[in-house]
Amino acid sequence: MTLDHIGIAVRDIDRALSHYESLVGIECSGRERIDHQGVEVAFIDLGDSKIEFLAPLHEDSPVAKFLEKRGEGMHHTAFLVQDLPAEIARFTAQGYQFLSDEPSVGAGGKQVIFMHPKEHHGVLLELCSKVETENSPSTHS
Amino acid sequence: MTLDHIGIAVRDIDRALSHYESLVGIECSGRERIDHQGVEVAFIDLGDSKIEFLAPLHEDSPVAKFLEKRGEGMHHTAFLVQDLPAEIARFTAQGYQFLSDEPSVGAGGKQVIFMHPKEHHGVLLELCSKVETENSPSTHS
Repeated sequence: MTLDHIGIAVRDIDRALSHYESLVGIECSGRERIDHQGVEVAFIDLGDSKIEFLAPLHEDSPVAKFLEKRGEGMHHTAFLVQDLPAEIARFTAQGYQFLSDEPSVGAGGKQVIFMHPKEHHGVLLELCSKVETENSPSTHS
Repeated sequence: MTLDHIGIAVRDIDRALSHYESLVGIECSGRERIDHQGVEVAFIDLGDSKIEFLAPLHEDSPVAKFLEKRGEGMHHTAFLVQDLPAEIARFTAQGYQFLSDEPSVGAGGKQVIFMHPKEHHGVLLELCSKVETENSPSTHS
């Protein structure tokens, strides 16, 4: 398990990107809309981890509600796991609850699922895993 | 510049460590008191980045005030830089303010300095750098 990214909720993704690109001296590596989560996201890569900026697409977005309640700032922590179904089963067996019954497709085509902050010392946790494709690196050299 | 760690403010460091060690399946890699910041900290390594848990040593600690106002949760984001004085000069020239006039010694003996969240889309930013010692790896192989 590694730290895939931290999510930062912002009102204006262009302004936030411009600010952080200048701050860290690294350009955005990708940007996309995730309609079913009601957000636009953009990434800045920092070593093996990333910062994900999230801005709401509309006022019913969970991120819009977060901004209204807490303002801009750190929003979630995402762990990259190898076997997402196995981790979901392990956490479920330990009594933890997920915010949805099944993973959904998040940024970069990853499978993602969230866990409620109240069970994790105030941290909204995301588990994510890469999806194997025909273009995935072969184990043969 | 890389993502060194994210800081999570907690009330009870033993409970938080036990919870996250079990969650991610990785044991704490280090723990120490930083008296001048009024905190005890503990780390769990996740790939090249780390989670830092911070608990207040007394009620005047800035982390105690954070917990009182916002509850447990994500507290700061720390960037590892190669040349801290040069980065401080660069940010100062851009008009950004630091929370102290000079860096101080943080966890792991690193030099650390903080920047106010209001200038960085709600994120309390830490810049940190490793300190060269006589035991640092030589450039000779």
